Amino acid sequence: MNSFKKGWFTERNELWPGMCISLEVDQVLYEGKSKFQEILVLQTKTQGKALVLDGIIQCTENDEFSYQEMISFIPLCSHPNPKKVLIVGGGDGGVAREVAKHPLVESVDQVEIDNDVMEVCKKFLPGMAVGLSHPKVTVHVADGFKFIAEKKQFYDVIITDSSDPVGPAVPLFQQNYFQLMSEALKPNGIVCSQAGTFWSSRKFVTETYKTVKKVFPAAGYAFTTIPTYPDGVIGFALGSLNPDISFKDPVQTFSDEELDRLNMKYYTSDVHRAAFALPKFINDTFR
Amino acid sequence: MNSFKKGWFTERNELWPGMCISLEVDQVLYEGKSKFQEILVLQTKTQGKALVLDGIIQCTENDEFSYQEMISFIPLCSHPNPKKVLIVGGGDGGVAREVAKHPLVESVDQVEIDNDVMEVCKKFLPGMAVGLSHPKVTVHVADGFKFIAEKKQFYDVIITDSSDPVGPAVPLFQQNYFQLMSEALKPNGIVCSQAGTFWSSRKFVTETYKTVKKVFPAAGYAFTTIPTYPDGVIGFALGSLNPDISFKDPVQTFSDEELDRLNMKYYTSDVHRAAFALPKFINDTFR
Repeated sequence: MNSFKKGWFTERNELWPGMCISLEVDQVLYEGKSKFQEILVLQTKTQGKALVLDGIIQCTENDEFSYQEMISFIPLCSHPNPKKVLIVGGGDGGVAREVAKHPLVESVDQVEIDNDVMEVCKKFLPGMAVGLSHPKVTVHVADGFKFIAEKKQFYDVIITDSSDPVGPAVPLFQQNYFQLMSEALKPNGIVCSQAGTFWSSRKFVTETYKTVKKVFPAAGYAFTTIPTYPDGVIGFALGSLNPDISFKDPVQTFSDEELDRLNMKYYTSDVHRAAFALPKFINDTFR
Repeated sequence: MNSFKKGWFTERNELWPGMCISLEVDQVLYEGKSKFQEILVLQTKTQGKALVLDGIIQCTENDEFSYQEMISFIPLCSHPNPKKVLIVGGGDGGVAREVAKHPLVESVDQVEIDNDVMEVCKKFLPGMAVGLSHPKVTVHVADGFKFIAEKKQFYDVIITDSSDPVGPAVPLFQQNYFQLMSEALKPNGIVCSQAGTFWSSRKFVTETYKTVKKVFPAAGYAFTTIPTYPDGVIGFALGSLNPDISFKDPVQTFSDEELDRLNMKYYTSDVHRAAFALPKFINDTFR
């Protein structure tokens, strides 16, 4: 366990040099190595359980809902009828949990390369992994890139819940991946990919946005706050085959009562709209 | 210097248990003790220089503009004619720099209790301290609480740029302070106070919002993202003597060209509106 001080886990990565966050740890619940990565589950003192892959915090029980709700409901509520959805990655099951909840979604394919991550999450993070066994969801243990290459005009929405662009996830940020996704979409389909923090990954965020813009007739970038990710924010790159889409104006909105029934903790229609209002310094790079 | 590991500064505080951020340090530029607090200035590896008071990061050159622009321009652009402004605290000068920039502002009083902080910032953080010597700004070295008690119907906008609610800043979050501010305001005046993170200080944020609501006919809460503050976010509690105000709709807006001329890096009119779209979990506590 990467540690600055006994009893604390410290996240350090070349992507975010010079700054890091640490979580106080009560107990290491699991530590193992799959075919693809090192897997660590921690019982933290104040953030609930944490899933760590190759030394990077993927989610903690305390704030995961922000990421999972936003990466799911922003694209789903931007689409008039998101019946068939594909999730690439997302082994913890949190995105599947959110996507399956959406009333218009009929079926979800999830393709995750690392079965060990899903098994570990079923055991230690059932609050997220519950998504993997939802009746709407079919899990495929496979390479997302190859899986998508075989699908043509099949999905309404594709969500890429990948780890960061180092190691195994690198291909999921490149132009040919976005190209394959665009071919796997039905007319007017939408993609939404995890796309970094505009604070310390400004160059990467801008490049990803521009890649999406090359491939799709419409592109957008939104973000949410989440304390246990670097800089406390994470962004989403969105592309649509519908050139007239306005991502920031959800075509489906939910009342407070409906949001309560859906057990939403972060997402509201106002939050959806606001997620596209970017700081001037990053907006300027998109011009 | 509080350190988890040699060469790193680690922020730890009872307000945010179980989680902390660390900055890699190239050099300690200043370390001293004023009548009120311990003052530390660090040259960090990737976040520019950092000002640290009593072990808490107050600002770094890399991201300070987010906080300074938002705590200033949200109240100023919510007021039709913010001629006379008071800043309480804000010894680094960053808020004064932003407030003085606003075209409708004619004069600014700044009351800071700790002269040493201002002197240290003039020497090591001139990019912020420049605000303290702006011709519109008059600096008073005094207790903000007492200073305000002597002013009646005097200011259009009062901004409280305090440290966190431990130690010397505690009174600046209490009801009688908001009461005194309401009396120091002209009709339709506005206050804006630093008011914590809704992630780990949810109870405090809710209490502060409710305190403002007790004293003012209109209350609001907005936030911005800032990587070197706890959770990567910081909020602002707003109160107005104008019961019909809608804080989220700025009465002054600026074009992209005007924002460029004002050297804004974070604030835009869209960002202003979006800053009031709160995650459902915190909005629910305000109902």
